Amino acid sequence: MIPTIPQSEYFERIAKFQKRIKAAGLDACLVHGTESDFANVRYLTEYWPTFEQAGVFVPAEGKAVLLIGPESLKYAQGRSVVPDIAQLLNYRESAEPDYPGIPLATYADVAKMAMGKKKLKKLGLVGTAVMTLPTLKAVQEQLPGVEVVWADEVFRPLRWDKSENELACHRKAFKVAEKAVQAMLNEIKPGMTEFQAIGIAQREIYANGGEYEGHSLYCFGGDRTSNGISRPTYAKLKKNEIIQLNIGARVSGYSSSIGLPVYFGKLPKEQLALVEFGLRAHKFTFELMKAGANAGSIAKAYTQWGIDQGWGDYMLYGPVHGLGIMETESPWIETTSNYKLKKNMTYQIDTFFTGNGYGLRWERGCIITEGGCELMSEKFMSMDCCKLD
Amino acid sequence: MIPTIPQSEYFERIAKFQKRIKAAGLDACLVHGTESDFANVRYLTEYWPTFEQAGVFVPAEGKAVLLIGPESLKYAQGRSVVPDIAQLLNYRESAEPDYPGIPLATYADVAKMAMGKKKLKKLGLVGTAVMTLPTLKAVQEQLPGVEVVWADEVFRPLRWDKSENELACHRKAFKVAEKAVQAMLNEIKPGMTEFQAIGIAQREIYANGGEYEGHSLYCFGGDRTSNGISRPTYAKLKKNEIIQLNIGARVSGYSSSIGLPVYFGKLPKEQLALVEFGLRAHKFTFELMKAGANAGSIAKAYTQWGIDQGWGDYMLYGPVHGLGIMETESPWIETTSNYKLKKNMTYQIDTFFTGNGYGLRWERGCIITEGGCELMSEKFMSMDCCKLD
Repeated sequence: MIPTIPQSEYFERIAKFQKRIKAAGLDACLVHGTESDFANVRYLTEYWPTFEQAGVFVPAEGKAVLLIGPESLKYAQGRSVVPDIAQLLNYRESAEPDYPGIPLATYADVAKMAMGKKKLKKLGLVGTAVMTLPTLKAVQEQLPGVEVVWADEVFRPLRWDKSENELACHRKAFKVAEKAVQAMLNEIKPGMTEFQAIGIAQREIYANGGEYEGHSLYCFGGDRTSNGISRPTYAKLKKNEIIQLNIGARVSGYSSSIGLPVYFGKLPKEQLALVEFGLRAHKFTFELMKAGANAGSIAKAYTQWGIDQGWGDYMLYGPVHGLGIMETESPWIETTSNYKLKKNMTYQIDTFFTGNGYGLRWERGCIITEGGCELMSEKFMSMDCCKLD
Repeated sequence: MIPTIPQSEYFERIAKFQKRIKAAGLDACLVHGTESDFANVRYLTEYWPTFEQAGVFVPAEGKAVLLIGPESLKYAQGRSVVPDIAQLLNYRESAEPDYPGIPLATYADVAKMAMGKKKLKKLGLVGTAVMTLPTLKAVQEQLPGVEVVWADEVFRPLRWDKSENELACHRKAFKVAEKAVQAMLNEIKPGMTEFQAIGIAQREIYANGGEYEGHSLYCFGGDRTSNGISRPTYAKLKKNEIIQLNIGARVSGYSSSIGLPVYFGKLPKEQLALVEFGLRAHKFTFELMKAGANAGSIAKAYTQWGIDQGWGDYMLYGPVHGLGIMETESPWIETTSNYKLKKNMTYQIDTFFTGNGYGLRWERGCIITEGGCELMSEKFMSMDCCKLD
């Protein structure tokens, strides 16, 4: 059984968003999504663009309209929970075809579809981090006289509190990721390329109910394990060095990731010590996560603990980040954070350390509860998991 | 053996681009790339962002600088062919963390790195279709007084003429895609979900030398075959209906896609007729592709031929689009196109027809030669391939 988000929940989300749009003194918001950063659009409509981009126009009063590129009409009609759909040129693919003969709308048309005769005076932009120049230009040209402001904060907190349906998707995504990680632990061998190892995980993700990877999958060795962000390569897996795995599956939109360092043969003593310390730090973090805790205080407590334990130089960034449709989403838990964790928020506990020429990450997701947190995977969190034959 | 692009070729590309920047009367260009639309950045530096975005600052005179987000420094240092790298906040991931303690540059710093004491007066933006608002805002704030113009056409044609190394990557990407398609033809069965079928292709792509999918893979049945753009679902493969496959592998950055309609059991007569006509149209297109041919004339000849054959109502868009790092890139071949095909340009012959409740696509890549074109896959282009047991 694959959990999904019921159609009614999308309309509840839109209604909540509309209240916030009104409270912010805006007449409407324009939300943006891309192929790789699609969360805002999918959250409101279930639609996920490919090749093209997409948007959602949400008025304070009236109906939401899904905005797509010229080529996706039938796809969007079959997929979008929101029935009103308009095709705009600025959402076309980056090859920028002309599409002769395909009728296209403007934002003025869209505002009329969404709001009827109500006047659009002030428009908020959401998803500005991924919104593109052609979209901004089209808004400015097609909506002359409308005041345009950045309004990410009007939308962003909606995605923080997860519903039971969202939690079910996340839990399933972790079950699928567990199967993919287990298959890698069983099958990867020295001499195999990193990409070949990724293929094992991909096979298992799709075979077991995943709809896609949860993020660009990680399997890499040697110096690249010191990279906070990286990608696999054609390099072969080697003995006697750390190999970093981070494997995430996506289920009905919702992401997961499980990370652990593994090795064949024997690790140099200082590397093994960092792996062991990393696991202790990972488990230490679990204890800090609970409803009511201040996010900044968690990051400071973690950082101070790491320094006190003698590993401060190996720390790079905050120990926890938000999890949702994107595997990394707001809110982060950094020393500069200032908000309280709430029940049913979801996070990735992302315990990363970087040494000189090596590094590692222990990672898994959790759901905040009143007294603590529910780990969405309890597997792969012992030193025994790291050593492969 | 996996073909790759030698380091020297990246510097040749940058040098050619710099000539064009100068000829366009610009002092520099700022190029943008994202996780899913990374081609411009990868073309110049080999760097491919994940989670974050990236840019390249290329001065008319001076040295190119790779621009990354706060988290990717070690990754970029290990991967980028361009040695000069700067971290800017506007390339951070869309979760928008603060990254306390990580030192960041401005575009003014970058201009100094790239151009020394030469003054930046006029800056061209490239990759505007994917360039984001925070990048535009940072440019405006950090480079006051600099004239900023859209300059995609200064860069775009560079990517059209493929080198022998690029062609080798494409050819290999088609060989990998052929293996993935063959495995699907061997293994997919009615009752399997579309996602499970995709997993077979993913397994083969990575096992046989692919570094990633060439595009979001297609396997879907029923009404969704009428979608020009679509995604697979949890629906099960069924007998007696068209199932559309489009499978692309990526090798050293370069993409491929092979598309064909398949079915179990027996197709309704009118659907089988459209499949057969589609294959004839696909082969008809091959004949039009050669160096010196006008792109608009090809699209018009194809469209008129389809109308003459009695299938005009089933046609949606131009029959051919550019192929490169992106599976769909410029230039397209549309009725509005006005340029001549040249030797070593690469295209996808994308023969798509959409009926009422069904549709199909025959697709493969080709390299333009003096007298015609080289098909990068000769497999899967007969009616025998379509019928599965």
